[in-house]
Amino acid sequence: MTKMTKDQLAVNNLRMLSVEMIEKAGSGHPGLPLGAAPMLWCLWSRHLRIDQRNPQWVNRDRFVLSAGHGSALLYSLLHVSQFDLTINDLKHFRRFGSQTPGHPEFGNVPGVEATTGPLGQGLGMGVGMALAERFLAAKCNRHKSLINHFTYVLVGDGDLMEGVSHEVASFAGNQQLAKLIVLYDSNDVSLDGPTSRSFSTNVRQRFASYGWDTQLVEDGNDLEQIDQAIQQAKQSNQPSLIEVRTVIGFGAPHAGTNLVHGTPLGKKGMSVLRQNLNWQAEPFTVLPEVAQLAQQKIVQRGMAAADQWQKEVVKLAKEFPQDLAQFKNLFCESTNGLQVSLPCYESGAEAGRDTSHKVIQDLADQTENLLGGSADLSSSNRTEIDNSYLMTPQNPTGRNLAFGVREFGEGTILNGMALHGGVRVFGATFLVFSDYMRPAIRLAALQKLPIIYVFTHDSLAVGEDGPTHQPVEQLMSLRQIPDVEVFRPADPNEVLAAWDQAISAVDHPTILILTRQQLAVLPGTKKLAKKGVERGGYVISAQKGLVPDGILMASGSEVALALAAQKRLLKLNQDVSVVSMPSMERFCQQSAKYQAQVLPKKIRRRVAIELGVTQGWEKFTGIDGKVIGIDCYGASGSMDELLTAAGFTIERIINDYQQIHINDQQLLSINGY
Amino acid sequence: MTKMTKDQLAVNNLRMLSVEMIEKAGSGHPGLPLGAAPMLWCLWSRHLRIDQRNPQWVNRDRFVLSAGHGSALLYSLLHVSQFDLTINDLKHFRRFGSQTPGHPEFGNVPGVEATTGPLGQGLGMGVGMALAERFLAAKCNRHKSLINHFTYVLVGDGDLMEGVSHEVASFAGNQQLAKLIVLYDSNDVSLDGPTSRSFSTNVRQRFASYGWDTQLVEDGNDLEQIDQAIQQAKQSNQPSLIEVRTVIGFGAPHAGTNLVHGTPLGKKGMSVLRQNLNWQAEPFTVLPEVAQLAQQKIVQRGMAAADQWQKEVVKLAKEFPQDLAQFKNLFCESTNGLQVSLPCYESGAEAGRDTSHKVIQDLADQTENLLGGSADLSSSNRTEIDNSYLMTPQNPTGRNLAFGVREFGEGTILNGMALHGGVRVFGATFLVFSDYMRPAIRLAALQKLPIIYVFTHDSLAVGEDGPTHQPVEQLMSLRQIPDVEVFRPADPNEVLAAWDQAISAVDHPTILILTRQQLAVLPGTKKLAKKGVERGGYVISAQKGLVPDGILMASGSEVALALAAQKRLLKLNQDVSVVSMPSMERFCQQSAKYQAQVLPKKIRRRVAIELGVTQGWEKFTGIDGKVIGIDCYGASGSMDELLTAAGFTIERIINDYQQIHINDQQLLSINGY
Repeated sequence: MTKMTKDQLAVNNLRMLSVEMIEKAGSGHPGLPLGAAPMLWCLWSRHLRIDQRNPQWVNRDRFVLSAGHGSALLYSLLHVSQFDLTINDLKHFRRFGSQTPGHPEFGNVPGVEATTGPLGQGLGMGVGMALAERFLAAKCNRHKSLINHFTYVLVGDGDLMEGVSHEVASFAGNQQLAKLIVLYDSNDVSLDGPTSRSFSTNVRQRFASYGWDTQLVEDGNDLEQIDQAIQQAKQSNQPSLIEVRTVIGFGAPHAGTNLVHGTPLGKKGMSVLRQNLNWQAEPFTVLPEVAQLAQQKIVQRGMAAADQWQKEVVKLAKEFPQDLAQFKNLFCESTNGLQVSLPCYESGAEAGRDTSHKVIQDLADQTENLLGGSADLSSSNRTEIDNSYLMTPQNPTGRNLAFGVREFGEGTILNGMALHGGVRVFGATFLVFSDYMRPAIRLAALQKLPIIYVFTHDSLAVGEDGPTHQPVEQLMSLRQIPDVEVFRPADPNEVLAAWDQAISAVDHPTILILTRQQLAVLPGTKKLAKKGVERGGYVISAQKGLVPDGILMASGSEVALALAAQKRLLKLNQDVSVVSMPSMERFCQQSAKYQAQVLPKKIRRRVAIELGVTQGWEKFTGIDGKVIGIDCYGASGSMDELLTAAGFTIERIINDYQQIHINDQQLLSINGY
Repeated sequence: MTKMTKDQLAVNNLRMLSVEMIEKAGSGHPGLPLGAAPMLWCLWSRHLRIDQRNPQWVNRDRFVLSAGHGSALLYSLLHVSQFDLTINDLKHFRRFGSQTPGHPEFGNVPGVEATTGPLGQGLGMGVGMALAERFLAAKCNRHKSLINHFTYVLVGDGDLMEGVSHEVASFAGNQQLAKLIVLYDSNDVSLDGPTSRSFSTNVRQRFASYGWDTQLVEDGNDLEQIDQAIQQAKQSNQPSLIEVRTVIGFGAPHAGTNLVHGTPLGKKGMSVLRQNLNWQAEPFTVLPEVAQLAQQKIVQRGMAAADQWQKEVVKLAKEFPQDLAQFKNLFCESTNGLQVSLPCYESGAEAGRDTSHKVIQDLADQTENLLGGSADLSSSNRTEIDNSYLMTPQNPTGRNLAFGVREFGEGTILNGMALHGGVRVFGATFLVFSDYMRPAIRLAALQKLPIIYVFTHDSLAVGEDGPTHQPVEQLMSLRQIPDVEVFRPADPNEVLAAWDQAISAVDHPTILILTRQQLAVLPGTKKLAKKGVERGGYVISAQKGLVPDGILMASGSEVALALAAQKRLLKLNQDVSVVSMPSMERFCQQSAKYQAQVLPKKIRRRVAIELGVTQGWEKFTGIDGKVIGIDCYGASGSMDELLTAAGFTIERIINDYQQIHINDQQLLSINGY
């Protein structure tokens, strides 16, 4: 056997570290690390510019492991690259509370650029990062290349089978994102067996159809071939896909089959692998020559790049202090402390989406780096920044993003842009199609990204387009995604306040649920909305007496209906309060005392009214109350007909309220009360 | 101007009917009908074999309008084809309760093969139909071609931007679905403007990469070119994409722009259009020569094909009565009255997915036409039919479907297969990735399709794979989709019973939520589970005395915990009942009396326990009760550590229960009680 080069030693060391982690954990995915170690070693040691002293260096290259199940390889790389991941961390792979969870987690692990695992989304986040880079580069690089980096993504066959890979790759091709380079770990195997069972796509032809530059590396163990391909990709003025042919589980007993995808190799398998790789070192060893090579090729090279960049910044500070100020402002500060500055509405009426459109102009005027768009519905969602233009390869500073009819892709791209930093982003579609985007919203929340979603056409009131376009369950189901805040404002003043909450969020996504139809300015909101929306729920119209006989609660367009019912009930000698509940999540975060002020516990005659599924409102109406909602699909017809047919009438509210009165009497006779 | 041919007259008549419908409705999408009328007239008058006397004729060609916003054109075609849609129906386009809703709705409108509107999904349903056709043809056509039809789909640019189009087209290419023919209405415009804003994909190259046959028709008004392309596509042994270049809104003032996509033309626009099309007839006229042509080319041609088929059936009945019996059985009866025939479990433990695997074998043995698969997780979901093989072009009767890593595509294909008829289908993935499939589940419910979803790995108990793989909000959010029944069984006997409910459903989808980890057989379920699961919720372990002091309720793996807590509480002199709630939806359909038996209204000391978000359980626990759930994301770690950290312990249950006791005392003092 010929002596291994240092590079080969490094590759095998990464392989061994990775499978040793998996072996010790008793679970994990050895297939990818064994096959893809060469391409990632090549990328990290010869191309990737990162700085372990400052993992957040703004001009670092970005690397996303879209095939997140290969996390052991990423952690191994971060370890040899001297990021804050010790051998001990590697030994605790997949353990509770460790720095090395089963799939990469952004925010928890230094050097991990994105949370991945749900396939396809890493590619989308890479596209978003490359897009943000180009936007910022176009804005900041007048005299110096302050922002000038590549975004690399490793994808597997599974990533490319997912539909979202189509959406974002087609988008990236249209945008000509030249600095996006995707390494495709092409091994013909997925979890269930050979990919040929369901996948016979010519991937390079497919990406060529999107306008990508494509290359093939026939031997995934050949570092020079890989190196050359990456070099060439860097020169391209299109996004690049490099298909690297590999053997899944290279060196292990079941190499080349799905048996090596997601199960530890076991004692025997490890022994075979060690033999095949000619590996003698103890488990969890980094060979001195490998450590040295990594020090030189990754760490020093990275630090040199970062130092050079720092020098440029210093020069810039002297020569063009305004440039630097703009850069710093853009990258770090311009979205801090943003607030909606529009005056409150006195009266009149406006569609939720139209008020939102005004807020977008207001905020876009305050900061250069707010940008966003829609999934081909900007004219319906009203999300255009009027004072800007479409982002295109020719106009990379355009702040209006045309995502195309690609809701899920939109969601992943927004995540990538937010992860990149330097921009504040929002995205839109019809509420009913938030279902298409849902997996990306979850990942935004998991990564604590302050994305703002603008979902309009928020109920049956959509009318004639019928049930496929009428959201029913979406509203409540979005509320159920942890760490997402949903606001459904009731009138123009609540829209202003809800946007205010959204734009001031720093560690969670916010969903704004807006109407297509007009919302009248409600009495009192000019004064009450700001604080009320901030608290999630508030008494928008109190009872006349000291204590209410009952409570009507609602969100969005139904608050007006509740107010009308309140008046009618008063004539029937029922003195009720009305609670506007724009955000259940926010309301539930308030003090018990505040919650009890709004919803006094002893008042059990409660009716909730919302154009969505009833499930979830019972938290506030309880066993004795009533919820007027929609637990079936809508229909095609005029708004008024639909709402009447669905029982969104004052009469229904009165009737339901009175039924509770009867139950209440029964309750009095219950044993124990 | 040269005299129009009869064909051209027919095309223009369809155009006019469509825009007249939209005009009268005051809303709708004129762009597609005006551009795509020629290709659909060509398809319907020269190729599509349908029988208006019997819209359900099993061997009819299927046509799916994936770009469902073009519904006016479909209705116009159905009208001239003498389906049960009158001129009066056309005049009530988009009206409440009409036969002509804003988007095509399967089941409500004769001749409509699928509910469309949410873009991309119609293509997937077409793929499913073509797959079912091939499966049935391979089984039924020994002596006669009983099943031998084409599936046609019309897609627009929007459909092809959606990710799901990638998933299903890649799948169809792998499956070589030769009898799938897709007409692509290629007009370079979508809602927001020119598609070039976000879309510059070479669509034919893209589909070629999937293994499709592709053609280009340069002039979408040229019926002969279109005809020839369809003829050629019918000869292909691959699926076919025919790109037909059209002008959106052909003939209207803003033809070729997005202004004509989704807004009525208005009086002036209509007048220009009439002039451009040289159209003199009154609104809502079908010219006699057009009616005659449709009668001859669509109706008579269709009836002749159906009659011929009927003759073959009669011949077959004489010559090969067994073939016919098999066919009838397969197509009509074999899934009626199916039941799980496995004996109940006495004791022991088994993972939910493993019990489910046994049921699948049981049912697959009972009927030839049960088939299904997974999104590349069959070995984890345990959904293989062991006694069958993989469905491939070479083995089209295989009952195991490898959908690839394509959850959304899987969902749409399942819908298409169910719509086709003759098969009963199930599909699987991890519960957390049901998010990817969600839009298709909604469309299954809207279409009342009895799809069965097998979602395994149902909670934080997934363990080491971490939060990206641990469902939290999915369980409750799936329950919120109207007309879907979710079952989360607590032990092997409940799994049997839940599958029993799923397989006997005829008009709604059922979701089975199953564990990866073992579930012990619970005391009493051998007797109680069947009826209890059917009712959605039941007392699995009653209190000792006549009336319980409190109620613990749970679903799935948490029922065992509730039972353990019940014992401990008894020692603390709290005599509680335990309710197993495998299906909230089903429970809420029971009589008030039954519900009150299980959850007596006067008992307010209630604790619900479920490894998912809490929101939704309050319906049963009320304002005074407690819900032990997960309102945040999980983590990577061992199952036991995670569950303890999340508070799924007996101690927590006892503690929460006792806290209610305190509240209860407060409640006693509430005014009015």
